Amino acid sequence: MNVFEAHFQTFEDPEGGTPLSSRLAALREELSRRGVTGFLIPRADSQQNEYVPPSEERLAWLSGFTGSAGLAAVLTDQAVLFVDGRYTLQAAQQVDGAAWTVASLVDPPPESWLGSNLRTGDRIGYDPWLHTTSAVERLQAACAKAGAELVPLDRNPIDAIWTERPSPPLGPVSVHELAFAGEAEDVKLGKIRAEIARLKADALVVSDPHAVAWTFNIRGADVAHTPLPLSFALIPKDGRPIIFIDGRKLSNATRDHLERNASVAPAEQLTSTLGQLAAQGTTIALDAATAADALSRLITQAGGKPLRGADPLALLKAVKNDTEIAGTRKAHIRDGAALARFLSWLDREALNGVMTEIDAVEALETFRRETGALKDVSFPTISGSGPNGAIVHYRVSRKSNRRIQAGELLLIDSGGQYQDGTTDVTRTVAIGTPTSEMRDRFTRVLRGHLAIARAVFPDGTTGAQLDSFARQYLWSAGLDFEHGTGHGVGSYLSVHEGPARISKLGTTSLKRGMILSNEPGYYKSNAYGIRIENLELVVAADIAGAEKTMNAFKALTLAPIDRRLIEPSLMSPDELDWLNAYHVRVRETISPLVDEATRAWLAQATEKV
Amino acid sequence: MNVFEAHFQTFEDPEGGTPLSSRLAALREELSRRGVTGFLIPRADSQQNEYVPPSEERLAWLSGFTGSAGLAAVLTDQAVLFVDGRYTLQAAQQVDGAAWTVASLVDPPPESWLGSNLRTGDRIGYDPWLHTTSAVERLQAACAKAGAELVPLDRNPIDAIWTERPSPPLGPVSVHELAFAGEAEDVKLGKIRAEIARLKADALVVSDPHAVAWTFNIRGADVAHTPLPLSFALIPKDGRPIIFIDGRKLSNATRDHLERNASVAPAEQLTSTLGQLAAQGTTIALDAATAADALSRLITQAGGKPLRGADPLALLKAVKNDTEIAGTRKAHIRDGAALARFLSWLDREALNGVMTEIDAVEALETFRRETGALKDVSFPTISGSGPNGAIVHYRVSRKSNRRIQAGELLLIDSGGQYQDGTTDVTRTVAIGTPTSEMRDRFTRVLRGHLAIARAVFPDGTTGAQLDSFARQYLWSAGLDFEHGTGHGVGSYLSVHEGPARISKLGTTSLKRGMILSNEPGYYKSNAYGIRIENLELVVAADIAGAEKTMNAFKALTLAPIDRRLIEPSLMSPDELDWLNAYHVRVRETISPLVDEATRAWLAQATEKV
Repeated sequence: MNVFEAHFQTFEDPEGGTPLSSRLAALREELSRRGVTGFLIPRADSQQNEYVPPSEERLAWLSGFTGSAGLAAVLTDQAVLFVDGRYTLQAAQQVDGAAWTVASLVDPPPESWLGSNLRTGDRIGYDPWLHTTSAVERLQAACAKAGAELVPLDRNPIDAIWTERPSPPLGPVSVHELAFAGEAEDVKLGKIRAEIARLKADALVVSDPHAVAWTFNIRGADVAHTPLPLSFALIPKDGRPIIFIDGRKLSNATRDHLERNASVAPAEQLTSTLGQLAAQGTTIALDAATAADALSRLITQAGGKPLRGADPLALLKAVKNDTEIAGTRKAHIRDGAALARFLSWLDREALNGVMTEIDAVEALETFRRETGALKDVSFPTISGSGPNGAIVHYRVSRKSNRRIQAGELLLIDSGGQYQDGTTDVTRTVAIGTPTSEMRDRFTRVLRGHLAIARAVFPDGTTGAQLDSFARQYLWSAGLDFEHGTGHGVGSYLSVHEGPARISKLGTTSLKRGMILSNEPGYYKSNAYGIRIENLELVVAADIAGAEKTMNAFKALTLAPIDRRLIEPSLMSPDELDWLNAYHVRVRETISPLVDEATRAWLAQATEKV
Repeated sequence: MNVFEAHFQTFEDPEGGTPLSSRLAALREELSRRGVTGFLIPRADSQQNEYVPPSEERLAWLSGFTGSAGLAAVLTDQAVLFVDGRYTLQAAQQVDGAAWTVASLVDPPPESWLGSNLRTGDRIGYDPWLHTTSAVERLQAACAKAGAELVPLDRNPIDAIWTERPSPPLGPVSVHELAFAGEAEDVKLGKIRAEIARLKADALVVSDPHAVAWTFNIRGADVAHTPLPLSFALIPKDGRPIIFIDGRKLSNATRDHLERNASVAPAEQLTSTLGQLAAQGTTIALDAATAADALSRLITQAGGKPLRGADPLALLKAVKNDTEIAGTRKAHIRDGAALARFLSWLDREALNGVMTEIDAVEALETFRRETGALKDVSFPTISGSGPNGAIVHYRVSRKSNRRIQAGELLLIDSGGQYQDGTTDVTRTVAIGTPTSEMRDRFTRVLRGHLAIARAVFPDGTTGAQLDSFARQYLWSAGLDFEHGTGHGVGSYLSVHEGPARISKLGTTSLKRGMILSNEPGYYKSNAYGIRIENLELVVAADIAGAEKTMNAFKALTLAPIDRRLIEPSLMSPDELDWLNAYHVRVRETISPLVDEATRAWLAQATEKV
């Protein structure tokens, strides 16, 4: 009996090993016409988006591989697909083994393969819209090492042979009202212009559509799970900004909203406008992380100076204002109520003998939908039972789907997009009776989670300085987890937002108003996975006698942490106090918003440990 | 009554405000003869040594400023001395205020001053032997910004006018026997050649004299506190290495030792030999941290390729072999016995009404001398009572010297150079009855120290990942300390050795066999200073069921931590267990080596907390 149905998430199995050899052959013919001996196909669009529209899925169309990261190199006599550890198995299943070799994307990187496998005289084409300039520089060095040449191609050769290529999306753009955004566009533009002046630039190309959405207080519907409108903007230090976007996505009202502060131009006009500006010898700032190499090339060729660096908008966007903070609090209360209903339902039904991972995903989405406010899930829910829980980036499909069984753990990582805020929460639930090892591991992960949640740190502290706090109790048992502790989160925008993160690579200072996830885990291969994730708001720490300005985290997420998995004897009194106080807060905030059965469940789920 | 006398440390007050205007005038004349409008004088020798010989103290000779870091810019109409926060006060006292301005060395750096104060057309000279290439690049950019030019000068203009300049030191070189070094020179050279091959270089210039000493198993006596022989070496990928050193420092035996594996050439022959090698178009690796800009320039001008990077020897040297580890353990036991005698003496005598900070320094050096094995102190002892303890880099002088008083803390940071190992230890001692605030702060520092001492971490973990462990209990009270938690330590070499360190800037992985200090502190301005420092050896952590290769620290230092300053109620049972076990180890190891009175003192100083 499955009364639920999900709309934002599907569960198809990736197609397997379809022979797409005619596509590969057509591409090779096209390459030969273009005078190159090879071509690079990244899984990327022109803005380095995390989710890309179907029209940009060139790698999947050519190879059959549907993972979210990868790069293919098609040479005259071989074709190689580079993927990271998450996708090694999936790639081998999806591509035609007769035509493709699967190789490493990360360690070693594709440059290492290219450096040793290209031949002197090879001319390797690439589409400068699909790579950042730093990526191109690395590829160029690898080609040079082998005596080959990296050649920018004007039009993507795949587009020339992809006859049934979907049209770009035309998701309607809506205004993100001041009641949610908290800061008017002209105020934001003032801050951005100050940043452009600080960079000593004449203008800024906004190549990250999240940044366009934030600056002009709009949201879109072009890709899955993130309400971003595919678009670019050009913001001069002085003068009127221009937004480059397909006009068919704009209602009259939205266009009026935009034109209060900017001109609106067709998407394809970006290159000519930018070229004209560059021709005046201007210095134009580019976001190194998202700006396509084509933009740098265009500016240089027109006589301007591209200034590559960190997007100055990213930091402005990451620090949430009071309205956004109030909004995210509301979103987390609403989301917490849906989650309580789900967890209560799960406890009642998990052992009914038929429930599967997909049933859990669909139920959770339905409870979120029933809030009446859900715009989308913020990413495909990870619902991993037993051994599937140990796969960090698991995405359940009809084929991988498992029945939930007693003695297992179920790891559920999910989130909702609401107009007032984006949520992201992971809970790990005991199905039946957990083993003492599971309780030990869960308690170590929990203590790491609490070490972050309870941390107090001086202004200027980076995420790198905090990351180890989350790992110390695993380390002391010879264990660890192979991902960062936390990422930034947007405000009704991307659930993965830079520049701050809690990771040994997190070099951005944590500022008050930033929202970060706190999600340590532990994964035992072929057995079970554990992760405990709350979103945390960076707030002032009020400490009597403090000699420095100190900050701390305040948990935004409101959901019980499974008491059946906690071994209290391993925890300190301070840790237990924090946990019990958190559970009181969860119960008092959420109880008034849920049905009687959920309320009763919540009462016992938040009992003192 | 002072029965002690120190030899390795002196206590003169820096001379104050001597008008050295004739020197400044002579320099300006010389600059005018050379056709430049200014000159830069760093406190540096040609190898970026921490301690420099008197012949290299050009900055002190010219300005009167004797601090260990600084840079002067002498222009036609002004002279500026850049110093860091430690030296602002001292610099103002030492230089002639009529001739000099004191400015910031660090934040902002001198480049910022030069960029805004130089004039178009200025030609600013520098001695390319006294700056690294990266430093020169930064200075060049600053000059360019002002429309000025940075000009390398062939002979240092100060040397031309410094008539009474001391000769370079001629400290005798001795062989560092295999019984201490643990690894023969030819084995080390094999490893170094593998590193040169890995860098794809043809040769390596060893510009760090510590690295020369390590490679060829020699020690010297050219500078204070570090047994290094001023020298360079050139190690070709194939063929015989050459050591460039003043032959007068070598006995026949030492020369024979060196010539087993290398040729010995006069120091001044380095440039011609390097030039000849470079003229063959070779790639020559240089240590970016110590190689003078003159070396890069010389290689380039001769037609070779300088390859600047991290010194590949630094990592080899940092990982101690079994013999070095056994040696350092012995050195720490010997040093611990001397320290116990000192601490016991201090407890008896501190309140005799006449004891001063200098008395404490002299007593400690005497106890170390009485081991019969002390070669030098490893740095000038920091002996700071009361408010002087809050000055992180305090060095007691006759003028700053204070009588030790009841109710104060005494911070003693000291170390010894022994042939089998280098020590570095800080203890903070209660004189009379400490306040409850002092006990609270001391306990927070101690808990941070223990968090490092007890840490378990996976192979590959950097010092940056551990640094915050030492700060967490201070942070939670709104406090912090403004220095790194720990530095690497050499084996009868420099007490400050790279590349590993425990600091937010420590990007080198901690490897088994490395020795690092663990020295968190707390400093209350004008009141007191606290620091607790042990040296720690990185060792394998033996954990049942570990899923990764794990490491841990093992304390080398053996000295009681003042129980009168510990507030046990703030500590966890695990922390108290560690501390008590450490104290048992100290007592059992040191008691057999000391007199009856010290033994009795040790018994109560290591009682269970």
